[in-house]
Amino acid sequence: MTVDLFERAATGFRDLADAIVAALEAADPTVRFRRDDWRRDGLGGHPPGPSGGASLTGFGTTCIVEGGALLERGGVGFSQVGGHLSADAPVAMPGEGDRFRATGVSLVLHPRNPYVPIVHMNYRRIERGGRGWFGGGADLTPCYLNDDDARHFHGVLRAVCEGHADVACHTDLKRACDDYFHLPHRDERRGVGGIFFDHLDSGDGRDLAFVRAAGAAFLESWLPLASQHRDDPYGERERDWQGMRRGRYVEFNLLWDRGTTFGLKTGGRIESILLSMPPEASWRYDRSPEEGSPEAALVDVLRTPRSW
Amino acid sequence: MTVDLFERAATGFRDLADAIVAALEAADPTVRFRRDDWRRDGLGGHPPGPSGGASLTGFGTTCIVEGGALLERGGVGFSQVGGHLSADAPVAMPGEGDRFRATGVSLVLHPRNPYVPIVHMNYRRIERGGRGWFGGGADLTPCYLNDDDARHFHGVLRAVCEGHADVACHTDLKRACDDYFHLPHRDERRGVGGIFFDHLDSGDGRDLAFVRAAGAAFLESWLPLASQHRDDPYGERERDWQGMRRGRYVEFNLLWDRGTTFGLKTGGRIESILLSMPPEASWRYDRSPEEGSPEAALVDVLRTPRSW
Repeated sequence: MTVDLFERAATGFRDLADAIVAALEAADPTVRFRRDDWRRDGLGGHPPGPSGGASLTGFGTTCIVEGGALLERGGVGFSQVGGHLSADAPVAMPGEGDRFRATGVSLVLHPRNPYVPIVHMNYRRIERGGRGWFGGGADLTPCYLNDDDARHFHGVLRAVCEGHADVACHTDLKRACDDYFHLPHRDERRGVGGIFFDHLDSGDGRDLAFVRAAGAAFLESWLPLASQHRDDPYGERERDWQGMRRGRYVEFNLLWDRGTTFGLKTGGRIESILLSMPPEASWRYDRSPEEGSPEAALVDVLRTPRSW
Repeated sequence: MTVDLFERAATGFRDLADAIVAALEAADPTVRFRRDDWRRDGLGGHPPGPSGGASLTGFGTTCIVEGGALLERGGVGFSQVGGHLSADAPVAMPGEGDRFRATGVSLVLHPRNPYVPIVHMNYRRIERGGRGWFGGGADLTPCYLNDDDARHFHGVLRAVCEGHADVACHTDLKRACDDYFHLPHRDERRGVGGIFFDHLDSGDGRDLAFVRAAGAAFLESWLPLASQHRDDPYGERERDWQGMRRGRYVEFNLLWDRGTTFGLKTGGRIESILLSMPPEASWRYDRSPEEGSPEAALVDVLRTPRSW
């Protein structure tokens, strides 16, 4: 049963990555994604993991776009890897034994227009010893708060959860997302949230059905926002603010994101892990938005997450 | 004796910060530094440290410049803090007991011209229980390798060490710098190095004399490089490369730098800690410089540090 689920999950993730790339290319015909099929055998071509912890073999596909009219930088990745966990692996993982395997689809899109929100999605299956589970989620990171956008994004994800209520409680998954995408040093969430879960194991395939549905809903959750705002007028002020918000995105990913730090500290494929980085990010000293400004409205909701 | 050294160190660090700011303002009359005198009482105005670990009180001065002709962004800071270390403090510190105090001067300068190297300097004294020690160093991070620049910078630091050879072995401090400013996930050093040391305690003030001399040599080590290259012609190619190198600077500081991560995870003053961030940084997918190019020459020396 476990083997079955892993293969089915991997096939679904690969197909989803392909479908998303095709849809994004249709939405932004100014550029094509570059497609890198990679294979990893032991440590060939990669620096050893600095903290040891895990050795990986496997394969994957990294699709990347840069300099598009809609997407200034974006990546969609599929991977299927296996390896040994050593005793000092920098991660707490259920199950027993030192062998594990993992497959997943992940995506981060950094739009050019500051009114189109950054979006992230990742779904994965991990197995260790006799245990297997799903994890992942999707979250939206606007530079400017737009209530309708946030409601639409959360609405799509809520509907998916309600269709799989036996394995996914939307309220819990939404709260887990606010808790996870949190920059404690800024007392801010990364964005307006979405859903997040880990260690989901229903033992009967209902978990896979939910994960598939959540992945399949991605385009519906985000593309309408992109279509609506991609031509919104903006100027230097909005672009500056976008740069600073992208700086916070970098801070979260490099300081707090478990996937990023685990990957980098165990010698994962750097270019694939750092697909999540924005094309440009900026830092300014002590730049708080003016009270009552659109920029301040965003920060308010990052400090106090809302129910959408 | 220990109290004495602490006060003397603090006074020296504060004076050094002032002198450096004055010299940098003279070198770049297009802008003035903004000066923030801050004071910290318990947790007032700051988010609590997300990992607990330490509570700090104290004061300091943060001087920052942005948008200058020479310095696109730069900060010079002085601080003097004390606090309690809790059992789960994310740092291994010599000495005993839960009380410590620390004073230091630190500086990161991000020049506008890609031919002027980024520079970092930090000297500090820490005391815990009956023990006290000095730490710190200085290192140079060029976007383009220039042998004469690297030789000059290292030459100044070597001369300082040779004048204090009883407490500072230049060979060891240079190697420690290459080891510390290392991005294992990239298999690169951050730059061409400098000196780095920690837990320096000669017990008689010779350590302080060395640290003062090293700090006093900063302007001589870097300003001539700035004067020489600040008007070097450059174009889009050099600016792009500078953006990517600044991206690596961000990666080092947020992923690997103990000072940055300790500060952020214990609720330190964010804006002061993140003075080290560049004004802008960029990420591109899998962009290796062409063999034989000036960009490749830099990467070579980051992979295999040289003796200058």
